[in-house]
Amino acid sequence: MTHIISIRDLDRAEIDDLMDNARKIQSHHFSESSLKGKILGLLFFEPSTRTRMSFEAAMARLGGSSLTMGSVEASSITKGETLADTIRVVSGYVDAIILRHPKEGAARLASEFASVPVINAGDGAGQHPSQTLLDLYTIRQSMKIDKLNVGLLGDLRYGRTAHSLAHALSLYNATIHTISPKGLELPGTLVDELREGGTEVIDHENIIDVVKDLDVLYVTRIQRERFPDSSSYFKVASSYRITPELLAGVKDSLIVLHPLPRLDEIDPRVDSLPYAKYFEQSNNGIPVRMAMLEKVMK
Amino acid sequence: MTHIISIRDLDRAEIDDLMDNARKIQSHHFSESSLKGKILGLLFFEPSTRTRMSFEAAMARLGGSSLTMGSVEASSITKGETLADTIRVVSGYVDAIILRHPKEGAARLASEFASVPVINAGDGAGQHPSQTLLDLYTIRQSMKIDKLNVGLLGDLRYGRTAHSLAHALSLYNATIHTISPKGLELPGTLVDELREGGTEVIDHENIIDVVKDLDVLYVTRIQRERFPDSSSYFKVASSYRITPELLAGVKDSLIVLHPLPRLDEIDPRVDSLPYAKYFEQSNNGIPVRMAMLEKVMK
Amino acid sequence: MTHIISIRDLDRAEIDDLMDNARKIQSHHFSESSLKGKILGLLFFEPSTRTRMSFEAAMARLGGSSLTMGSVEASSITKGETLADTIRVVSGYVDAIILRHPKEGAARLASEFASVPVINAGDGAGQHPSQTLLDLYTIRQSMKIDKLNVGLLGDLRYGRTAHSLAHALSLYNATIHTISPKGLELPGTLVDELREGGTEVIDHENIIDVVKDLDVLYVTRIQRERFPDSSSYFKVASSYRITPELLAGVKDSLIVLHPLPRLDEIDPRVDSLPYAKYFEQSNNGIPVRMAMLEKVMK
Repeated sequence: MTHIISIRDLDRAEIDDLMDNARKIQSHHFSESSLKGKILGLLFFEPSTRTRMSFEAAMARLGGSSLTMGSVEASSITKGETLADTIRVVSGYVDAIILRHPKEGAARLASEFASVPVINAGDGAGQHPSQTLLDLYTIRQSMKIDKLNVGLLGDLRYGRTAHSLAHALSLYNATIHTISPKGLELPGTLVDELREGGTEVIDHENIIDVVKDLDVLYVTRIQRERFPDSSSYFKVASSYRITPELLAGVKDSLIVLHPLPRLDEIDPRVDSLPYAKYFEQSNNGIPVRMAMLEKVMK
Repeated sequence: MTHIISIRDLDRAEIDDLMDNARKIQSHHFSESSLKGKILGLLFFEPSTRTRMSFEAAMARLGGSSLTMGSVEASSITKGETLADTIRVVSGYVDAIILRHPKEGAARLASEFASVPVINAGDGAGQHPSQTLLDLYTIRQSMKIDKLNVGLLGDLRYGRTAHSLAHALSLYNATIHTISPKGLELPGTLVDELREGGTEVIDHENIIDVVKDLDVLYVTRIQRERFPDSSSYFKVASSYRITPELLAGVKDSLIVLHPLPRLDEIDPRVDSLPYAKYFEQSNNGIPVRMAMLEKVMK
Repeated sequence: MTHIISIRDLDRAEIDDLMDNARKIQSHHFSESSLKGKILGLLFFEPSTRTRMSFEAAMARLGGSSLTMGSVEASSITKGETLADTIRVVSGYVDAIILRHPKEGAARLASEFASVPVINAGDGAGQHPSQTLLDLYTIRQSMKIDKLNVGLLGDLRYGRTAHSLAHALSLYNATIHTISPKGLELPGTLVDELREGGTEVIDHENIIDVVKDLDVLYVTRIQRERFPDSSSYFKVASSYRITPELLAGVKDSLIVLHPLPRLDEIDPRVDSLPYAKYFEQSNNGIPVRMAMLEKVMK
């Protein structure tokens, strides 16, 4: 039985294999009854509508059904029962579980009690492997994913997606350029780990200093609640905003990614530029998740 | 790509065509795998359980799947993102979108950003074309839909369904009889437009003055919150209540319709009279919506 | 048209028949397209996520689709309309209705207005026949269900599942042993009825007095809110807690059941003992509900 809890559990060959299958699926090489008769259980202890809908759509495309427990119900289903018991009960209903939980480590715990495969769809500050896979997949769709200059911009301290992507990129010999406000830098332990593994990590004060060298610019949200007041937030946010003006003179092949939802981090005028790949990135969630569902259930 | 945003976008031939298909569907002339493999996305930014369930049922009858985002989630999915972005993301998951939104014009806006067809399931004071189509369909099921005397009763000022139905009936040479409390009359601009198009619109103070002439009596809810106090509400509401006594002496062929839910507007004793067609009307939502789904997705 | 409102509506032959079908289903003798094209409507006027998911899973296993109205929506769908009207409307969308409602008698009322079969999934202090059937089924899976010594432990006054199970067991010549805190005893009217029907009902002050004689121990939750303060609750709850020590010396064939969720009533160390059958019991909800769905829809 295969669980997918963390991108770190997968080696490069496994990641490449998943992405190869996603590409075949996206080219319509898949069976619409691949998972016919199978049931996917989506346990969302906190809301994440996009992730939920994307997994449900992926399951439907493969001919399967989905059962959902939303966050509103989560409080009532359990009536104080342990996650272990909830997982054991739901294991009896479904063929695989997608778990979203506010506490780091919840997905790993769940996998120990489940009698069916568990896919982690985000557990607190922990992992969200399907997001990382679709990020990688979108890069690979545009260019050879080797020795790239990748800029990570925004809140790199709390931004779970940036952490997992940085780790995954280290498998592909990337150079990581970090651009983040003071206090929201990539955690030191992660930087150390990346460098020990041979990955170059370069900090930049301003995006303008590095944008012309980048192959990939990965933008994340800077949350207002991290700042003492609105004016200090706006000051920082505006200097991290991606505009057509900022992108003047970048490489033709640059792609701009964002895990969405996007607020003010990217000017809507960027949407029509060839660099903007964030909506394709979101769409890629379907074939990537289809490949993941096939991996654990087929 | 066909969107269905307003009944006004459809000409009489298109409306007749949809209703012909609905009739065929209701006579079991349809394929249970007509939309097999297709996914319908239901984005409900405000609750409308009946409309949602009816579209989901219609999709299931045609062999398709549905993904739902409810109003509770709507606040969290967006985290402040624009409707345009939400629509672009969901367009990547599904084959058509049913949109319910509190703001007038939202459906038209959504259709501009969607890469899949959008069906408006109500946007504020705006349109709700599937309701109008099932209203018309129910009339046509009982009689030749030409030169009818149609009574519109209740809150005609805010009642969106009455506005759209009045417009649609004008395509079928109806005479419109309005019966509504002071302050809740049909908007003057709509009356002018109907009259300019050649439709006769006649105001009546009391339902008893006109009920014997009617072919169709369309009852809508008068909402308590439109009145300064309960006693003035009850006084008005009771004089607009449909009872078996009121219906004594009407045409044998009269049909009484109501978009439901019904509170006190129609005495439950009316339910067993031959005039009562409001539950058939509700049931007709399934074949009518099946015809709409086939129109946009097949 | 067959409704399933109360276990009391079924005679022993009908119960045996349902359980025989559930056993065949569990042995994979069923058609995955048995209910293809059918739609199940789940109307949950109060939350019961487990029951809902279990019915949805059962429907999906048989190839059917489900439509759900959750408790959050229930308040808005009705906008004050009667249950009768809601049922009449939903009857037009689906092929069977699963109803969960806070008021006793709601399911019976619903069955009178529905044009499709209704299955009661719990109505207040009333019935929840699918739970009783899966309880019986789990007993029958382990032993010949005749002349058994069955212990009912916990809150037997308000515990709906214990009432229905006691009644059902009386059809199988069981001896009922009750073990409950003062004030939470099995209702006198039910005890009288059982005794009049020839069933022996024996009260015990302590579980230790009877545990060695039991074939089945059915544990239910004692709710904190039944007690004036926490300390009196904990004192009672701890003396009703099932532990490995308590189970030393019981019959080898004893099975311990619990309708779940389980809080502190059963020590997690019991989970790995051969007596623990509560997770199998939960899993049995699927084949039992599949058999029920086939009974009413096929």
